[in-house]
Amino acid sequence: MKSAAILGASGYGGGELIRLIDGHPELDITYLGAHSQAGKRLEEVHPQLGDSDRILEQNTADLDGVDIVFLALPHGASAHLASELAGRGVAVVDLGSDFRLDTAERYEAAYGAPHPFPNQLGDWTYGLPELVDIGDTNKVAAPGCYPTATLLGLAPLLAAGAVGFDSIVVNAVSGVSGAGRSLSESLLFGAVAEGVAAYGVTTHRHRPEIEMALEAYTGRAPVRLTFTPHLVPMLRGIHATITVPVSEGVTANDLRGVLADFGDGKPFYQVVAGPPQTRWAVGSNRAIVSVYLDESTGNAIILSVIDNLLKGAAGQALQAANLMLGFDEAAGLPASGWMP
Amino acid sequence: MKSAAILGASGYGGGELIRLIDGHPELDITYLGAHSQAGKRLEEVHPQLGDSDRILEQNTADLDGVDIVFLALPHGASAHLASELAGRGVAVVDLGSDFRLDTAERYEAAYGAPHPFPNQLGDWTYGLPELVDIGDTNKVAAPGCYPTATLLGLAPLLAAGAVGFDSIVVNAVSGVSGAGRSLSESLLFGAVAEGVAAYGVTTHRHRPEIEMALEAYTGRAPVRLTFTPHLVPMLRGIHATITVPVSEGVTANDLRGVLADFGDGKPFYQVVAGPPQTRWAVGSNRAIVSVYLDESTGNAIILSVIDNLLKGAAGQALQAANLMLGFDEAAGLPASGWMP
Amino acid sequence: MKSAAILGASGYGGGELIRLIDGHPELDITYLGAHSQAGKRLEEVHPQLGDSDRILEQNTADLDGVDIVFLALPHGASAHLASELAGRGVAVVDLGSDFRLDTAERYEAAYGAPHPFPNQLGDWTYGLPELVDIGDTNKVAAPGCYPTATLLGLAPLLAAGAVGFDSIVVNAVSGVSGAGRSLSESLLFGAVAEGVAAYGVTTHRHRPEIEMALEAYTGRAPVRLTFTPHLVPMLRGIHATITVPVSEGVTANDLRGVLADFGDGKPFYQVVAGPPQTRWAVGSNRAIVSVYLDESTGNAIILSVIDNLLKGAAGQALQAANLMLGFDEAAGLPASGWMP
Amino acid sequence: MKSAAILGASGYGGGELIRLIDGHPELDITYLGAHSQAGKRLEEVHPQLGDSDRILEQNTADLDGVDIVFLALPHGASAHLASELAGRGVAVVDLGSDFRLDTAERYEAAYGAPHPFPNQLGDWTYGLPELVDIGDTNKVAAPGCYPTATLLGLAPLLAAGAVGFDSIVVNAVSGVSGAGRSLSESLLFGAVAEGVAAYGVTTHRHRPEIEMALEAYTGRAPVRLTFTPHLVPMLRGIHATITVPVSEGVTANDLRGVLADFGDGKPFYQVVAGPPQTRWAVGSNRAIVSVYLDESTGNAIILSVIDNLLKGAAGQALQAANLMLGFDEAAGLPASGWMP
Repeated sequence: MKSAAILGASGYGGGELIRLIDGHPELDITYLGAHSQAGKRLEEVHPQLGDSDRILEQNTADLDGVDIVFLALPHGASAHLASELAGRGVAVVDLGSDFRLDTAERYEAAYGAPHPFPNQLGDWTYGLPELVDIGDTNKVAAPGCYPTATLLGLAPLLAAGAVGFDSIVVNAVSGVSGAGRSLSESLLFGAVAEGVAAYGVTTHRHRPEIEMALEAYTGRAPVRLTFTPHLVPMLRGIHATITVPVSEGVTANDLRGVLADFGDGKPFYQVVAGPPQTRWAVGSNRAIVSVYLDESTGNAIILSVIDNLLKGAAGQALQAANLMLGFDEAAGLPASGWMP
Repeated sequence: MKSAAILGASGYGGGELIRLIDGHPELDITYLGAHSQAGKRLEEVHPQLGDSDRILEQNTADLDGVDIVFLALPHGASAHLASELAGRGVAVVDLGSDFRLDTAERYEAAYGAPHPFPNQLGDWTYGLPELVDIGDTNKVAAPGCYPTATLLGLAPLLAAGAVGFDSIVVNAVSGVSGAGRSLSESLLFGAVAEGVAAYGVTTHRHRPEIEMALEAYTGRAPVRLTFTPHLVPMLRGIHATITVPVSEGVTANDLRGVLADFGDGKPFYQVVAGPPQTRWAVGSNRAIVSVYLDESTGNAIILSVIDNLLKGAAGQALQAANLMLGFDEAAGLPASGWMP
Repeated sequence: MKSAAILGASGYGGGELIRLIDGHPELDITYLGAHSQAGKRLEEVHPQLGDSDRILEQNTADLDGVDIVFLALPHGASAHLASELAGRGVAVVDLGSDFRLDTAERYEAAYGAPHPFPNQLGDWTYGLPELVDIGDTNKVAAPGCYPTATLLGLAPLLAAGAVGFDSIVVNAVSGVSGAGRSLSESLLFGAVAEGVAAYGVTTHRHRPEIEMALEAYTGRAPVRLTFTPHLVPMLRGIHATITVPVSEGVTANDLRGVLADFGDGKPFYQVVAGPPQTRWAVGSNRAIVSVYLDESTGNAIILSVIDNLLKGAAGQALQAANLMLGFDEAAGLPASGWMP
Repeated sequence: MKSAAILGASGYGGGELIRLIDGHPELDITYLGAHSQAGKRLEEVHPQLGDSDRILEQNTADLDGVDIVFLALPHGASAHLASELAGRGVAVVDLGSDFRLDTAERYEAAYGAPHPFPNQLGDWTYGLPELVDIGDTNKVAAPGCYPTATLLGLAPLLAAGAVGFDSIVVNAVSGVSGAGRSLSESLLFGAVAEGVAAYGVTTHRHRPEIEMALEAYTGRAPVRLTFTPHLVPMLRGIHATITVPVSEGVTANDLRGVLADFGDGKPFYQVVAGPPQTRWAVGSNRAIVSVYLDESTGNAIILSVIDNLLKGAAGQALQAANLMLGFDEAAGLPASGWMP
C-alpha cells in the first residue's frame, strides 16, 4: 500500500477523492488537509462519507513521507503549496488550474495577472491520460472539466485531419457542482432550479486551456475557438457540443472510425452511435462521445459527456496518479455509473 | 367581447391558452375541444385551473359563430381542421407545425411526407409579430418554440448586415414541456432529472423553419445553418446560443445597437447587457436577448431566451390573435414573469 | 385608484407583491423600499419583472400619503417600521412574523426574546380571511406559510367537533422559496437538489402560531400539536399532512361535508376528492384541501396545499388588503395556477 | 467465486444489482433475465453500465447450477418463479412483495386477492438483517423501501419499551425511482418536477408489511399505525418521519441511547444528532436515524433516511445474500454515499 494526502479535502472534489481512494486497493489516505474547515470531523464536512474518526488537519506542504499529494484547492490557492511540494520531490496531482497553462504569457492573458512561479509552468504534465503520456513525471496538473469533455471529443478528429481548425464552436452545459461548494447567490437553489443561462461568455478561462492542449496535441498553432459555457439545473455532468467543418471527402463513417480507433484499449472512453446522455457518465470515470455529419452545412457535430467531478476532476486525478505510481490505470475507478 | 374556441385544449399549450384567455379583457372562451380527453371536466385535465363546470367537447370544425379558433394539436392533427375552418372563413391561429412552411418542397424535405393540402401552404401567415406584419390575415401559423427564440436573436442582426450568413451555428436547450404532455419513456422524471442530452441532431424539423423565416425576412436564399437542440431538466424555458461571424468593422456596440433599435416599441422584446436567464422570461411573453463580440475569433455570440409555452406557443398565438382581432397587441399577455 | 408602498421589495415575497399589484385594477405602487439593495434599479433585483425605470428607495416609515403599506421584511426587521406606520394611522399589512402572536408570553416562548412593543401585540388582526373577519382594522399581520396551509385544513374540522384536540400531528414539506432569498449554505442548489431533510424539529416558530390561531378559532385552550417541517427540492409549494383522531361516529362523508360547507362561497378555497398536488396551487392564491378517514386507526388524514409565496405570503397579504380597502376580496389575485 | 443470476434485470433495482455485483469480490453474474427487454444488449437497457457484450436473456427458473438468484420483478410476477426456484432448492432473494407477508389473511387484506401459494408464505425469511436473523434460510423476501426506513427507526424503540404502541403516525416521502421504471403519466417529469403529493392514503400496501414486522419483532399484536407516503421531485431517497408517544419517564437521552445500542456493530446503521438528509444515504447502503423528544406533547419524533434503491432494494438484497452465502455482511456494499 502507498500513502496519499488530500489537501482541500472539504470541497466536492476533495470529497470524491476520499470516497474513491477509500475504495482503492493499493492506496491509503494518511492525511486530510483543509483551510477554513480544519479541525472539524470529516463527518461534519462530508456527511455522505458516514461515521468516521478522521479529522481535517491544516493544509500544509510538510508531507515528506507521503507517496502522493492531491491538491483540490480553489484557483490561486494551490500554486505555493504545489510548488513547495514539488520542490521537495513529493509527487503531486494538482486538480486546480494554477499549473495547467504552459507559458507565462498564456497564463497572464487568461487570468489577468502574472503567475507567481512562471519558470515552473513548463515542468508540469497536463494530466489527460488519453491525450498525454503521463510517463515518469511527479508533477501533474489535472485538466479542467470543460477542457476534458471538449478535448476528448475534438482532439482525435483534429489530429487525424478529419475536421478543420477554422470555425470551431464549442457550446457546453454543466451541472452546478462544477462551480464548487462556495457560497454565492448565483448558486442558490432559488437561482439555479428551473433556469438556464450562459456565463463567462468570451472570457472563460477554460478556453485558452483547450486551445493550448489542442496546439500541443496537433502540433499546429495558434488554435482559436469560440467557447460558451452554460449552467443548467442539475448537480453533476458536462455536455459539450462541438461544431466544426469536416475536411473534404470525409464521411460520417470516417468520423466515427477516427473516434473508435482513438478509443481502442482506453478503459474510460466509449463511443456511441446516438446522442450520449450525461447521466450515463455520472458516477463513472468514462467519457462518452458521439459524432454526426451535418450534410447540409458540411459540419461535424461532436457530442461529449463526462461526470465533471470524476473524469472532470477527482477521477481523472486518480487515473493520473495510478499511472504515476505504477498501478493499473483503472485501479479504484468506477467504469459503471448510477441510474437513475 | 369576442368569442374564442380552443381545440386540443388538454395539452400544456391548451392549458396555458385557457389561463390566458380567461384573464383577457375582450375575449371569452366559448368552446373547448379535445380528442381522447373529450367528455371530461376541465378540472380533471387541468387541475391547476381550479374548480369549474366546463367540459371538454370533441374537437370539431363546426364552429361558425366563433370569432377565432386556436388549434393546439399534435403535428399532423391540425391540417384538416385548420383547412376546413379556414375554408369557412373562420379566423384560425394554428399553434401546430402543419402550415408553418411555405412550400410543398420544403415541407416534404422536413417531414418526409407530402403535405395533404400543398396549395394552401402559401396562404398562411407566419405568426411572429416582431418580424412579420400580421395585417389582415385570418390564417396564422404560430411559429415553433426554437424558431421563435432563434429568430428574435438572429434575424435583426442578419437583416442589418451586422453578421454574415456563413457558419451560423445554433445550439439550444429546452425545458421538458416543449415536448408536450405525451407519454414517452424519454420524458419520465427518472429519465430527465439530473441529465442533459442532444436530440434530433442534424434532423430537427425546426431547422428548415428557421431557415425559411430567415430567407423571408432578409430576402436572401438559401440560408443554411447548423442547429442542435438539447433537453435539460427543467419544466419551461428555451435558451438559444447563436454563434455567427460578424461583418467587417462591426463592433460590439454596433451589435447591441441593432438589437436595441429592433426592439424599440415592441412590448415583448427586451435587450439586456449580460447573459439572460430563462427564468427571467418564464411566466411572461417576453423574449430577452443579448449579444457579445468574441474578438479572438471574430464571432458574435447571441443569447436569446423565452418561455416556450408563452412566447414560444400560447402567448405568441394570443399576441397574433390580438392583432387579427384589432385588439391591443399586449392584451391579456403578461410581461412580468415568475421568480423564483 | 389607491396607492400602495412595499417595503422589503427585494425579496421573493416583495417581488410577487410587485407583480400582483402591477396587475391590480384599483391599486398603484407608489413606493418601493429596500435595505441593502436600495438605490438599485428594479430590473437588477427582479429581472423577471422586465424593463422598468423604477428604483428601490430606502425602507422608511415616512409614507403618510400612501393608502396601504406592505412590509415584506425579515423577522425582527418589521416591528419598528410597522409600529411607527401604525402609530401614524397608515394601513399596514405585515408579511413578517413580528405581530402575529397575541401575547408577550407566547412571543417570548416562541422567539426566545422579549417583544419590543408587547403592548401592541393585541392590536393586530391575524390576516387569514377564511378564518378571521378582517373587518375595519388597519393593522394586519399576515400568517406564515405553514400556518396557512395547516389551519385551512385543520381548523374547520376542529371547530365543527369532527376531530379531536389530542394527538394532532402535522407534517409539512416546503419548497425552498419559503426560506427566503438569503445566502445560506443550506440553500445552495448543491445542498438542496436530490435531498430531503426535516428542520426545526420540535422548535419551529410556526408551531405556536398554529396553536394560537386554533385556540382563537375554536375557543378552546391550550391546543398542543407536534409539528415537523421538511425542505424538499422544489421552488414553491407547501404540502401539509395532518393526522388527528376523528370524533366518535364521524364518517368520511361527514369530514368532507365539513370542509365543503366551510369552503362555500370562499373564492380561494377548493375541496378535492383525491390527494391534492402542490403544483395545482402554484401560481394561484387557492388553498386545496382533501380529507380521508383511516378506518384502521380512527384517524383523519387531512391534506392541504398552497403556493407559499401567494396564499402563503404575497397573495394572502393582498387578499387582506383588498378587504381593508373595500375592494373585492379577489381583486388582482389569480385563482388559476401554472402547469407544468 | 460463487455465481448469481438476476431476473428482472432491466429495472432500476436490477441495474443497481448488476453494478453492485460486478464490483463484488466473491460473486459473479452468470445470468441476466428480463421480460419485454429480453434479447437486448445490456448497454441498450442500462447505458450507465457502459460497453458490454452481455445480453439480457429470458426470465426463467431453469437455473439449477446457480448459487443464488435475485428476483427484481414487478408485484405479482415473482411468485411463480420464486416458488419454482425455491422448490428446486436454489437460493433466492426476492426483491418483490409476493412473499413478504406472513399469512394468507394478511396478504389478501393487503392485496385484495388470494395468494397463489398461501402455504409457502411462512417459509420465507423477511430479509432485514438488522432486525431478523437471516441464518440458514435459502428463501429471503427482501423488505419494501418504506418498511425498511420506518422499521429501522421505530422497531428498536418499540422493542425497548421507550415508546408506546398507540398513536403511531408515519409520514414518508420518496424519490421517484421508488415507483420503478414503468411508463405512467404520473411519473412524467412534467408531472413530478416542482410538485409534491400524497398517494395511497390509508391504502398503501407497505402499511400491513410494517405492522407485521413490528409484531414479529416486538412480540405484541396487533400493531396499528397510520401511514401516509408522498412523492417528491427527486430521483432517490426515502425520508420517514415517525411520531409516537414516549413512555413515562423516558428522556431524549434514553431515546438516543436505545438507537445507539441497537446500531452498535451494525455496518450500515448510523445514528446522528441532527436531522439526517436523504442525500447522506444516497449511493450508500446505510440507514441514518435520529430521534427527538417533543416535550410539549410528549411525543418522540424519529427521522430515518435510506437510499430506496440500495438499502431499500438492491443493497439490502445483496446484504442478505452475503449472509446466506457465508460472506462478510458488507461485501461489495458501499458505506459511503455520493455528494453532491
